Amino acid sequence: MRDKFEAIVKDNPHILYGGDYNPDQWQDMPEIIDEDMRLMRLAEANAMSVGIFGWKAIEPEEHVYTLEWLDDIMDKLHANGVSVILATPSAARPDWMDKKYPEVLRVQANRVRNLHGERHNHCYTSPYYRKKVAEMNQMLAKRYADHPALAMWHISNEYGGDCHCPLCQEAFRNWLRVKYDDNITKLNKQWWTGFWSRGYSSFDDIESAAPHGENAVHGLKLDWQRFVTYQTTDFMENEIAAVRKHTDNPVTTNLMGLFPGFDPWKLSESIDVVSWDNYPRWHNDYQNTWELASDIAFVHDINRSLKAKPFLMLESTPSLVNWQQVNKLKRPNMNILSSIQAIAHGSDSVQYFQWRKGRGACEKFHGACVDHVGNENTRVFREVAQLGNILNKLDGVVGTSVEAKAAIIYDWDNRWAIDIMNGLSDRRNYPETCMEHYRTLWKKGIATDIINMEHDFSEYKLIIAPMLYMLKPNVAKRLKDFVANGGTLVTTYFTGYVNENDLCFLGGFPGDGMMEVTGIWAEEIDTLWHEQTNHLTFNGKSYEIKDYCELVHTKEGCETLASYDEDFYEGMPVITKNSYKEGVAYHIAARTGCDLLEDLYTQILDSTDVKPVVTWDIPEGVSVTKRMGSGQEYVFVMNFTESKQNITVDEEYKNLVNDSVVTGEVAVDKYEVMILLRK
Amino acid sequence: MRDKFEAIVKDNPHILYGGDYNPDQWQDMPEIIDEDMRLMRLAEANAMSVGIFGWKAIEPEEHVYTLEWLDDIMDKLHANGVSVILATPSAARPDWMDKKYPEVLRVQANRVRNLHGERHNHCYTSPYYRKKVAEMNQMLAKRYADHPALAMWHISNEYGGDCHCPLCQEAFRNWLRVKYDDNITKLNKQWWTGFWSRGYSSFDDIESAAPHGENAVHGLKLDWQRFVTYQTTDFMENEIAAVRKHTDNPVTTNLMGLFPGFDPWKLSESIDVVSWDNYPRWHNDYQNTWELASDIAFVHDINRSLKAKPFLMLESTPSLVNWQQVNKLKRPNMNILSSIQAIAHGSDSVQYFQWRKGRGACEKFHGACVDHVGNENTRVFREVAQLGNILNKLDGVVGTSVEAKAAIIYDWDNRWAIDIMNGLSDRRNYPETCMEHYRTLWKKGIATDIINMEHDFSEYKLIIAPMLYMLKPNVAKRLKDFVANGGTLVTTYFTGYVNENDLCFLGGFPGDGMMEVTGIWAEEIDTLWHEQTNHLTFNGKSYEIKDYCELVHTKEGCETLASYDEDFYEGMPVITKNSYKEGVAYHIAARTGCDLLEDLYTQILDSTDVKPVVTWDIPEGVSVTKRMGSGQEYVFVMNFTESKQNITVDEEYKNLVNDSVVTGEVAVDKYEVMILLRK
Amino acid sequence: MRDKFEAIVKDNPHILYGGDYNPDQWQDMPEIIDEDMRLMRLAEANAMSVGIFGWKAIEPEEHVYTLEWLDDIMDKLHANGVSVILATPSAARPDWMDKKYPEVLRVQANRVRNLHGERHNHCYTSPYYRKKVAEMNQMLAKRYADHPALAMWHISNEYGGDCHCPLCQEAFRNWLRVKYDDNITKLNKQWWTGFWSRGYSSFDDIESAAPHGENAVHGLKLDWQRFVTYQTTDFMENEIAAVRKHTDNPVTTNLMGLFPGFDPWKLSESIDVVSWDNYPRWHNDYQNTWELASDIAFVHDINRSLKAKPFLMLESTPSLVNWQQVNKLKRPNMNILSSIQAIAHGSDSVQYFQWRKGRGACEKFHGACVDHVGNENTRVFREVAQLGNILNKLDGVVGTSVEAKAAIIYDWDNRWAIDIMNGLSDRRNYPETCMEHYRTLWKKGIATDIINMEHDFSEYKLIIAPMLYMLKPNVAKRLKDFVANGGTLVTTYFTGYVNENDLCFLGGFPGDGMMEVTGIWAEEIDTLWHEQTNHLTFNGKSYEIKDYCELVHTKEGCETLASYDEDFYEGMPVITKNSYKEGVAYHIAARTGCDLLEDLYTQILDSTDVKPVVTWDIPEGVSVTKRMGSGQEYVFVMNFTESKQNITVDEEYKNLVNDSVVTGEVAVDKYEVMILLRK
Repeated sequence: MRDKFEAIVKDNPHILYGGDYNPDQWQDMPEIIDEDMRLMRLAEANAMSVGIFGWKAIEPEEHVYTLEWLDDIMDKLHANGVSVILATPSAARPDWMDKKYPEVLRVQANRVRNLHGERHNHCYTSPYYRKKVAEMNQMLAKRYADHPALAMWHISNEYGGDCHCPLCQEAFRNWLRVKYDDNITKLNKQWWTGFWSRGYSSFDDIESAAPHGENAVHGLKLDWQRFVTYQTTDFMENEIAAVRKHTDNPVTTNLMGLFPGFDPWKLSESIDVVSWDNYPRWHNDYQNTWELASDIAFVHDINRSLKAKPFLMLESTPSLVNWQQVNKLKRPNMNILSSIQAIAHGSDSVQYFQWRKGRGACEKFHGACVDHVGNENTRVFREVAQLGNILNKLDGVVGTSVEAKAAIIYDWDNRWAIDIMNGLSDRRNYPETCMEHYRTLWKKGIATDIINMEHDFSEYKLIIAPMLYMLKPNVAKRLKDFVANGGTLVTTYFTGYVNENDLCFLGGFPGDGMMEVTGIWAEEIDTLWHEQTNHLTFNGKSYEIKDYCELVHTKEGCETLASYDEDFYEGMPVITKNSYKEGVAYHIAARTGCDLLEDLYTQILDSTDVKPVVTWDIPEGVSVTKRMGSGQEYVFVMNFTESKQNITVDEEYKNLVNDSVVTGEVAVDKYEVMILLRK
Repeated sequence: MRDKFEAIVKDNPHILYGGDYNPDQWQDMPEIIDEDMRLMRLAEANAMSVGIFGWKAIEPEEHVYTLEWLDDIMDKLHANGVSVILATPSAARPDWMDKKYPEVLRVQANRVRNLHGERHNHCYTSPYYRKKVAEMNQMLAKRYADHPALAMWHISNEYGGDCHCPLCQEAFRNWLRVKYDDNITKLNKQWWTGFWSRGYSSFDDIESAAPHGENAVHGLKLDWQRFVTYQTTDFMENEIAAVRKHTDNPVTTNLMGLFPGFDPWKLSESIDVVSWDNYPRWHNDYQNTWELASDIAFVHDINRSLKAKPFLMLESTPSLVNWQQVNKLKRPNMNILSSIQAIAHGSDSVQYFQWRKGRGACEKFHGACVDHVGNENTRVFREVAQLGNILNKLDGVVGTSVEAKAAIIYDWDNRWAIDIMNGLSDRRNYPETCMEHYRTLWKKGIATDIINMEHDFSEYKLIIAPMLYMLKPNVAKRLKDFVANGGTLVTTYFTGYVNENDLCFLGGFPGDGMMEVTGIWAEEIDTLWHEQTNHLTFNGKSYEIKDYCELVHTKEGCETLASYDEDFYEGMPVITKNSYKEGVAYHIAARTGCDLLEDLYTQILDSTDVKPVVTWDIPEGVSVTKRMGSGQEYVFVMNFTESKQNITVDEEYKNLVNDSVVTGEVAVDKYEVMILLRK
Repeated sequence: MRDKFEAIVKDNPHILYGGDYNPDQWQDMPEIIDEDMRLMRLAEANAMSVGIFGWKAIEPEEHVYTLEWLDDIMDKLHANGVSVILATPSAARPDWMDKKYPEVLRVQANRVRNLHGERHNHCYTSPYYRKKVAEMNQMLAKRYADHPALAMWHISNEYGGDCHCPLCQEAFRNWLRVKYDDNITKLNKQWWTGFWSRGYSSFDDIESAAPHGENAVHGLKLDWQRFVTYQTTDFMENEIAAVRKHTDNPVTTNLMGLFPGFDPWKLSESIDVVSWDNYPRWHNDYQNTWELASDIAFVHDINRSLKAKPFLMLESTPSLVNWQQVNKLKRPNMNILSSIQAIAHGSDSVQYFQWRKGRGACEKFHGACVDHVGNENTRVFREVAQLGNILNKLDGVVGTSVEAKAAIIYDWDNRWAIDIMNGLSDRRNYPETCMEHYRTLWKKGIATDIINMEHDFSEYKLIIAPMLYMLKPNVAKRLKDFVANGGTLVTTYFTGYVNENDLCFLGGFPGDGMMEVTGIWAEEIDTLWHEQTNHLTFNGKSYEIKDYCELVHTKEGCETLASYDEDFYEGMPVITKNSYKEGVAYHIAARTGCDLLEDLYTQILDSTDVKPVVTWDIPEGVSVTKRMGSGQEYVFVMNFTESKQNITVDEEYKNLVNDSVVTGEVAVDKYEVMILLRK
């Protein structure tokens, strides 16, 4: 067992509880600010994010600064025991800036420059904006460096999107020049521009894809995604360097789950703490609650894996959001359950958007801790305060970690390549497929990391690599080594089709040597109509197949665990098992439901030493996780079903939620969470 | 009983029967014009709208006028006993104008200026166009001031849409300067621009929303709708002033039912007579005929309420239209039934688009009185002529009015705010909801006005205010006074959330003092998935709930008539009744079907003195209305079902449709209409 | 029986077998080229299309030519017995050209000029591009004029689309000036611009329709389609003239089935051989295999009818494509069956796109003969080679023809007018309707030509003219003459509504004199909701009606074969038969299913001497066709069902597919094809 990590905020060694706080919207109603302080104390809040989108409040006209309100808020929060996660205000620009320096306005893929408006839409390349943001950040850092409330930096907000302006096009070209050694022939080969006369004469001639321009060159689109990751990270680093001129507080930026716009593995290298904004569709109409819980757990596990240490849930709603087709209230206890789920997977915070509902404009009906009615006598506030009370007992959890022997590869580059690809079927569903493999482990209570294909594989016993269509250099080799050294590898249809630039491997799929370890050759892939099925029989039971049927041939020595039951490829292998040196590689050639995955993984796991975090049986819909550190273990038991579930624990525990003793057979109520500490 | 209003056209004291007549399209076939005169006499037509879209025919080149054809048509129509509703031709521009003065071309929200083409797409601000239209109108007025055919002015055609050109942006800014006292801080507060750095430094920086610009500031979008109403009205007033230089004939402009683009309450202040274009989807595949009839009745009642006097149905089709997905023929007798429905609700006209089908281009398959075959031997023409014969007997109806003690508030500002709002659910359905409340009264034969929230409430006994999300200044107070003085008020979920600029009321919903009169506090609102339901029990019967469930608490003394049957808010009140001084306020906290509304309104009406227009029972699907004036009463009985219905009248009547005597139990045939005059 | 036509390629009197071959993509891997030669021999390929999209490989910089690779490929192919169908490279432009001469970039209807990218998107008017293409083509022709591999010219690739640039606008105006005798009044009358002030002052003011411009003038839209046909043809003629400077090899360009963008009847006048690209959705989820086979047969028959002689199938896939929602593998034997279907309808080739799968970019997963694995050991290659072996036995088929006494009119101008039209219903389905009429003949084994309305009618005994909405000058007269001379004519709802410029006929439909021959007057047309039906009874059996019900009246002497069973027009005629001089005209006034058409055509055919190509019974789903010439007859029997079908042949045949003898009752396997030569 590892030692605990240090608390992220030194002076605040608690689960960070609070949310986005926007007093700049209420400057002309000081009584509201005072009321907020009272209500924060009631809710036992201890950390608030301040200043997001605050540029206009800080610099209403160019070079005119108004920071008194922020000074006052910092003081007030500190006086009320609340740490400040201070935001840099770059996520929205004041009007005077867009007017005087239009280069900051983003240009869309259709080559139309945005008008002033909305947020999150600046050019990441603009020299002016980079300089101005650095000045702003440095000014804030200098002013508050010694303020006792200052805990962390919240760099900008939800970075995302891309800009196609001439400055960005030139930056893209320069990025390509570096990548391809200033050799246009090298680029042309990797992008396969020999077709359709697409060859580039020079780097000068390249520009990003456009609805009315190039779309056929997939290497271009793939490299654009990488450039956007690079440029976003570079912009952020410029922001961070500025605050570091005067402060050494930890920095974070709030990520957005599986948002495909940039690769968080690259960006998170430049921050101290990973954080993300968590807005699940609880109580939706297409999924069981526990299935959604598993999907969210998958995202929490990515965020923990990004830096292999505690992360922060930096936004969530205490009730509803305002941007879904139908915006549901969180049912009673769901806010407590879903907030603690974050902690159960490695978060050291519960943070909301936002503390108090704004009165007007587009976000006025987004849920918040304090409603327009303005007092504590609401269902939502009561649950927020109840959670504050529970979190206050979890100081011991801070800094503990999750230890996983299993990993699933979910890779951003791979997703881009799959989504960009033409052909096969419109049912790509790469994230969904990874989440379905994950779900089988989640149900079994197995701690799992979610990694990218460049991550070190050696610490794991089981690696699941669904739809690993792209194999970057050395990935095949490293997977072979992993199996050779005793690891268990699971691959599926769509494995090893292309190299890192989306160029097909010649000589048979899975390419780059993966035929050797998987023991199969995938000759063709048949795609099924949306309503069409095939079937396979595994251990005497029939399972449905949908979407994809890869037609594979086994190499000598590779065992066929199941074959197709229908169609012209009836009898061809669909699940195979290949022993390779010390390890084993399984291949699942078709897309199945979770029923097959669950039964197959039961068999696969039996022959590994990857084990659940508890020894007792876990009912369907109940999630069990464990955080450990410095000799302590916290077991989280979460009932994501709508009915009571029974478990039989192995020892006597203390349930920190209500300070009860838990032993033997116990009932877990609908949406109940237990946090068990061995007595 | 009031005196009758004077006939709209002094020299033509009949129901105005005719339609759009476009002889300019047939100038090179004079035999067609002669045939039209013969056919008009056959149809007993007495009023035609002429010159709509006629600019090119009148001024084919700049400053070159060709009016001889119009002189001739005016003469011919007069000679055949047909009054002329003369149009100003501003609804379409000739090519030379767009070429020489491109400022007249409208700019779309994406800031792209339209090319020459289509119609209804000029800039309302363009100084050139305003000047040129005024000259054109004045010229027409001067030329025909003394022509005996001239009956009325048809100002332009179906005003609508908006323009985002620089001239309009500046006009918008000026309009805002007036509204907000030239005080940008005042605007910023009302628009809640403190979020996302949206604050405006000056009025100069404001521009309309755009797909690639601002969309988050809802006050901006709401005020834009108001500005468009203002600017359209202002443009129309410029047109009207021109014709009034030489004539005093009444002016109208044809409105478009519930068209949301501008507020007809504002625009209709500047015209003498309200008129509208009525194109229902008769015989559709989603609704009973009688339900559609009720919805159309709702719109007729708005048009009557706008000026509280007879209006005109200025367009309708004798058969089919050409712009629906499927364009159905009107079934036999439907043209007579639906035309007389307009009269039954207060119209003093039946007018068609159009008299004769054009030969080519986009409207050639829109229904008309005279088909391409060109003669009277068609099913459609025969029914048109039959109706002409009936209308000839209705001179006594002209100028009579409908007297209503019940009113429904359907308010354009409120609709805009509801539609602009982010959150809750995509099932806004404000118009549909108002029409469902209306339907319960329509079925009972209760005369109802449809008013806006600024209308005088004192003349009514029952006011129904569905989804009155916005409360403009004094509306809450005026509703309280209405109830205090003995009125019965019905409100629903979504009442009193925001002020006139979409800023939430603080301190609890319904805001601005409405909690006092309704007796409830609405804490939260849950939205249901499209297929999801809840239920309530009222008077022992179960009713379905869909879309919205407001979670309300009753104040002391407020009575709960029904509670939720399901979900975590089971048992909370859903229908409440609160006595307030001399009156009563009902609140319906969830969206239900018409079944609940019908049973609830039966109970509500029992305790008011709002009564049906007749004492006899009305079968479902039959509509009964009454027009009165100067001692006469006309009862309209309309069977909107596909089968015979029986009624038992209370006295002996003459049925003006076929001059029969009606007494005791009588059968009303499918699609039959009776116009009963007490003998 | 006619004499055979000469083989298209003199030196290659075989069925041309091969496909698009793109060695320019593999220039840096010479071993791949050598392997290709070996594999082509294995597949018995004899013709390849080379150089499509090859501009960048040929002229990488302006005036710098690199043709050595092409010389080498021509030599290698020749050495391996493969003829070259040499492409002109105009279908994609190199980057330097778009950069230096932006006029070549197409402008979309929204008036935005495309960026460099993709393919098939040049301006057809650009003087530079026309000159440059001519130079390129002439250079290629000169270089390879005497090369023994050169067999044919493949002019560009899949012409299509339109350009709205100023150069094209001016060309359009000039085209209109010619059409309308430089008389703007003539144009205004035909386009019916008297409505909405749409009249044009001069030809100078006309421009093409735009999303933000004119859309209401249907004559404009219709003439634009004709202009695009003209301009595309003109561009192609410029290409052809260049290659003819040095060579007299036949020229073709690959058409795209029912692609509506231009009229292939006009364009094909300028080429020697018709060819098309055939990509059916075999094994789809909405249609029986044999129904699709019938639809594809319809398109093959158009391509044969275009020049009334053998055509080429110039592209097809040996397996799957990459642009459908779901891209299915062709099931075993389907490639053989569907390839030979082309020959059965008159093709003298089977050509694929493409020979070898490219490694990268957007087409890398489009099916090809040689897969990424690179060898012959794939299911697809084996079937390709098996087909090569069969085709090698079909030299006798080359040049034979199909002789048809029945014809269906499917006319591009008519389709445009129907699609442009506003009104009636969104279910236009003109192509589908023609294909349903065709299917009844296909099932019966009747040879059928598919012609346009300007085609000579005199060679046929039966003409079917579904939905012949437009009647160009003299078409009505020629149809009358056809019937008068003993022909049998079938018309439907929607016949004879407009003239060639979409101007309605006055005096009753079907117009232009067609009432005389059809014996009916169509007064109105009712459209049905998508789920709505009506019924008719024919010979005692009830049939469903959908979409359209024309309300017709019979003239004296016209016989009613069936009447409407429902709605207010119950009892009105729906199928009529009118004897006119020596012939008969049938009218089908409503849209029915294929069941009615099949039974009705059985009765119609009984009274004609239009007979099936064989005397024996044909099971449903089996297609039988015959090619004849110079005394030989080849009967093609194709089973497009998923089960074995039995036929009883009338004599003894040799089945060229497997050299077996076929006589008496024989079973045809699922997807089996027989090619029967009378012994």
